[in-house]
Amino acid sequence: VDTWLVNGQVADAVPVSDRGLAYGDGLFETIAWRGGQPRFFGLHMERLAEGCRRLGMPAPIEAQLLADMRAAAGHQQRGTARIMVTRGSGPRGYAPPPQPAPLRVVAFFPAGALVTEVALPAASVRMCRATVSVNPLLAGLKTLGRLDHVLARAEWSDPQIAEGLMRDPAGHVVCGTMSNLFAVRDGRLLTPELNRCGVRGVMRRVVMRAAQDLGIDVAEVFLSDDDIVKAEELFLTNALIGVRPVAHFEGRPYAIGPVTGALRRVLGANVEECRA
Amino acid sequence: VDTWLVNGQVADAVPVSDRGLAYGDGLFETIAWRGGQPRFFGLHMERLAEGCRRLGMPAPIEAQLLADMRAAAGHQQRGTARIMVTRGSGPRGYAPPPQPAPLRVVAFFPAGALVTEVALPAASVRMCRATVSVNPLLAGLKTLGRLDHVLARAEWSDPQIAEGLMRDPAGHVVCGTMSNLFAVRDGRLLTPELNRCGVRGVMRRVVMRAAQDLGIDVAEVFLSDDDIVKAEELFLTNALIGVRPVAHFEGRPYAIGPVTGALRRVLGANVEECRA
Repeated sequence: VDTWLVNGQVADAVPVSDRGLAYGDGLFETIAWRGGQPRFFGLHMERLAEGCRRLGMPAPIEAQLLADMRAAAGHQQRGTARIMVTRGSGPRGYAPPPQPAPLRVVAFFPAGALVTEVALPAASVRMCRATVSVNPLLAGLKTLGRLDHVLARAEWSDPQIAEGLMRDPAGHVVCGTMSNLFAVRDGRLLTPELNRCGVRGVMRRVVMRAAQDLGIDVAEVFLSDDDIVKAEELFLTNALIGVRPVAHFEGRPYAIGPVTGALRRVLGANVEECRA
Repeated sequence: VDTWLVNGQVADAVPVSDRGLAYGDGLFETIAWRGGQPRFFGLHMERLAEGCRRLGMPAPIEAQLLADMRAAAGHQQRGTARIMVTRGSGPRGYAPPPQPAPLRVVAFFPAGALVTEVALPAASVRMCRATVSVNPLLAGLKTLGRLDHVLARAEWSDPQIAEGLMRDPAGHVVCGTMSNLFAVRDGRLLTPELNRCGVRGVMRRVVMRAAQDLGIDVAEVFLSDDDIVKAEELFLTNALIGVRPVAHFEGRPYAIGPVTGALRRVLGANVEECRA
């Protein structure tokens, strides 16, 4: 069963006046729990701290989050941890309280309902009509306002479709609803630049580093539909799935090529050991 | 004291797994409570219903919301009601549950802490650096994801500054942090078009109608900084403040001109009677 902690205590509710609910005034992290530990915890904490800094709210104490996750996971070796941090409650209105009392929510979801990322087959992927929200101020962060992703994910229910790609309103391909996107063209590894929208995934960062270590040329670019169609390889990343090749995009087949293969060899089955 | 009802019951908490908190997956309305009644209730319900339709979730029952507001307000004649509607709880992940059980939150804030809109002096207004998020899919709606407005409102604490204007990332002036914006140029009433971002305020709609009734030419346009600087009149609207003239914008003085005056005469002091 799922376990939730609110400010360190097992709880099933949060204050109705919380600004996370009222305004999406907060951030979250979704973390793979492997071997009884959070994977890439340091990278998740870096992104969370950067988000808190950009939102002008105090960052949570890492040791508290870790203790919460351990309490929520108990003896379970495998699952998914979710951390939410909000600016807490305050009087009505957008103005942040001068002395915020942030809310800290940690959830643990056992692996039972999850597939194992190393066993994930190459994915069938579609294009979504729903676009990603553009705001340089929030770009890269995993804020609690994700309605654009919800609407994109609501576009299909076919379980054979693993993911949908989203464009920004200008038509650039930015990400999957729950993943970052990589494409290989002419042997170069390309991924959308995320200075105006999108979430800078922890696994995206791990993959970019690993590619550089392998001597693969990596670039953050504006990706067009044409780049996707002409890509030699396509794959998706997130903290839970690791590197997942795309087998079909809108019916078009893609091979699991040498770049994806090399990254999977380094990160795939052994992703547990690749701590940042 | 503030009173909160969750699904019709007095409560101080919501389920920790609610998608409104997790993803901003919901909508809200802020409603002026005047003479023991919600003002412009029909218009608020229209916007809420349109939002639910666009979000693909069931719309709440108006009679229930009205009963909730009455229960929360009790015998109080004046205050602010807030309605939040979320897609409710569900399993982890963006995909909406096929049979959502929406959450309905109604809050009543007594008028004690509020100023009376007819007594509001003309406002001093600044420009914010924080930009409005762009997404045609969500444009016009009052979704629970309002972090852009929070960050804009966090830019000043001087109580002499009543409001800050926000631009979209392309540089068009779109709105105030908690209000819609109108400018008069060459006798025409201009307001930002909101097909890509911003919230279509109930009072904005009331003002546009009233202007048409008065034979004033109204247009939804892209507003530039130059339009603001050269405007003969500027005013702000929202459900609580009605029509509030801008006296200074970034130190530049503005007169309360004939268009603002005419609209205030029709709507201002008598705004209670102008039910839609």
